[in-house]
Amino acid sequence: MARSNRKTPPPEIKERISRIRRAMSRAKLPAFLITSHMDTFYATGFTGEDSAILVLPRAVHVISDGRFDEAIDNEVPWATKHLRKGVLSAEIGNVCRKLGLKRVGIQPEGMSLATHQAIKKAIRPCRPVDAPPITATLREIKSQQELTILRKSIRIAEEAMKATLATIEPGMKEIEAAARLEFEMRHRGASGVAFGTICATDGNAAHPHAHAGNRKFRKSCMILFDWGARFGFYCSDLTRVYFIGKIPPRIGDVYEIVLEAQLAAIDAIRPGRRCCDIDAVARNVITRAGYGEQFTHGLGHGLGLDVHEAPSLSWRSDKPLKEGMLVTVEPGIYLPGVGGVRIEDDVLVTSRGAKVLTSIGKDLDQAIL
Amino acid sequence: MARSNRKTPPPEIKERISRIRRAMSRAKLPAFLITSHMDTFYATGFTGEDSAILVLPRAVHVISDGRFDEAIDNEVPWATKHLRKGVLSAEIGNVCRKLGLKRVGIQPEGMSLATHQAIKKAIRPCRPVDAPPITATLREIKSQQELTILRKSIRIAEEAMKATLATIEPGMKEIEAAARLEFEMRHRGASGVAFGTICATDGNAAHPHAHAGNRKFRKSCMILFDWGARFGFYCSDLTRVYFIGKIPPRIGDVYEIVLEAQLAAIDAIRPGRRCCDIDAVARNVITRAGYGEQFTHGLGHGLGLDVHEAPSLSWRSDKPLKEGMLVTVEPGIYLPGVGGVRIEDDVLVTSRGAKVLTSIGKDLDQAIL
Repeated sequence: MARSNRKTPPPEIKERISRIRRAMSRAKLPAFLITSHMDTFYATGFTGEDSAILVLPRAVHVISDGRFDEAIDNEVPWATKHLRKGVLSAEIGNVCRKLGLKRVGIQPEGMSLATHQAIKKAIRPCRPVDAPPITATLREIKSQQELTILRKSIRIAEEAMKATLATIEPGMKEIEAAARLEFEMRHRGASGVAFGTICATDGNAAHPHAHAGNRKFRKSCMILFDWGARFGFYCSDLTRVYFIGKIPPRIGDVYEIVLEAQLAAIDAIRPGRRCCDIDAVARNVITRAGYGEQFTHGLGHGLGLDVHEAPSLSWRSDKPLKEGMLVTVEPGIYLPGVGGVRIEDDVLVTSRGAKVLTSIGKDLDQAIL
Repeated sequence: MARSNRKTPPPEIKERISRIRRAMSRAKLPAFLITSHMDTFYATGFTGEDSAILVLPRAVHVISDGRFDEAIDNEVPWATKHLRKGVLSAEIGNVCRKLGLKRVGIQPEGMSLATHQAIKKAIRPCRPVDAPPITATLREIKSQQELTILRKSIRIAEEAMKATLATIEPGMKEIEAAARLEFEMRHRGASGVAFGTICATDGNAAHPHAHAGNRKFRKSCMILFDWGARFGFYCSDLTRVYFIGKIPPRIGDVYEIVLEAQLAAIDAIRPGRRCCDIDAVARNVITRAGYGEQFTHGLGHGLGLDVHEAPSLSWRSDKPLKEGMLVTVEPGIYLPGVGGVRIEDDVLVTSRGAKVLTSIGKDLDQAIL
């Protein structure tokens, strides 16, 4: 059931596999098994789900099923194909035994304990060993090719928001605005949303995790949108707050504090700085203004094939930033019963500091509809 | 940090917790930890994410963070609340130690190996033991309350399709039709989609996993939609094929075969029958017609808080059907380069046999736009 032709992966994929192999070599892994969908896509460009990639020093095996037969031939003709009839773990076992593997590295992050138990049993006498987070670490640094797709994903989200804002008026429901925004993203080529769109007014915006509901926009109200597109598998992630009618006085002040904190944090970003230090820059601005307790989450997170990926831009992480990382910067202040303000951009770490890839306006006067 | 008031959960939740406790007792588990989001929601009605529920014989603990403080007070005031400052596993450890637990049951299905490793370390000297799939088994049987929500989720998906069909014309792109359909579901109250909407024409429909792309509807073409809403967390899942202009002759025959297979399988459903037997009923019809090799997937799957859940209605499962199970029935035939037909309904297992909850037309003459 194994076939192989057209021998060479495209350059970007070749480079990724080389890096995976160098990491394998450092971790003394003779083989490396990848099972989570975004990781198998990242490593090979193969779009199929429910599949596994086995990387060896001189070969790459794709273990999948009949649904993806044609996709494998089109997307990874340079890999060795195995189509399972039974369950995936059994076919992984067959391949490991056929190759005479003694140990195979597995990343504990992307696999359920149940799957791990099944694979452990199925690959005998081969043994699973915990691998370091090889793919998560590689995925932290975005290539030019990835950034091109990410920029497009951001552009789709922003253009969709501009089209949505033109339709907003008192009486419209949160859920209607969210539906419109998602439609406009899809219409511009998004394959879907990066996550469930948040559209929250007034008191509902005081919950950082608020979902869109049946509340109607009032003649005077604040609206928080947290939204993103998925395009070519890559996620964008933005937050903006808009106002209809009058800005509630306390919310206006809070808006300026959050924006100041966000700009200060962006300004502090450069390679070598630790994630916790950038978080602290924003947190200090907010704490000095008296709202430290109301900034209830970390400053941001890595963004790419997953909407939340490494690094975590939080007080909990002392990881240094590196050139090519893409992170969200999204401080927020939440006033229970009143409202909440969060401002979020997608920011690339470059050798000269931060480059903000999002461009939709965020000054207070641009927030008034 | 622990608080507790209003002592009694609503009847539906009380019943679920009782059932969980009976399963714990059978498995000799003094404590049971639930971490996957849909399971924590199912067990308690608490909507927060990134949280854990610890069920004991006489108490239920919610371990969460500040973002969900208010939600816990509103949704599970009868549970004991723990808000973490650090990572979730550390707080789970604190609670286990405070309670003096020696063993805690964990379901291997819903937890990554990395999380399991972190929890194992954090709860010392308490030990994690593998629990049977308690929540997955309970979730197989839908209550009247769940069915009310599921019917609404189905209704939203169907009404949205009717509205979308009215807009379809040659020249429209797959992705535009998918966007419209998702918008119409959102507009009718869906919190999102149950999964990325499939809209695939002609040759693209020959891939069971096709996504919507930039292909335009032609004057004469077939369009396959596989779509579902998420409403109140519950998923619907339907597939229909529609035709603009002439039906390609072979596809017309295939349509009738798939429909015959689907109706025969639905007719065979009753409590006590094994999943593999129902799969065989559909597969036999398709195999006798000469398309056995082109029916490349299982017949269906359970449907509820997850779009794919137990039971698996496949040749691989000898599990017997039970009253109250909700399954999709979705045979398909795929002709590479030509097109594919899949017809999918959501079907409840009742004491008297199958009750089809979906109602949007599926006769060939209803498929012509």
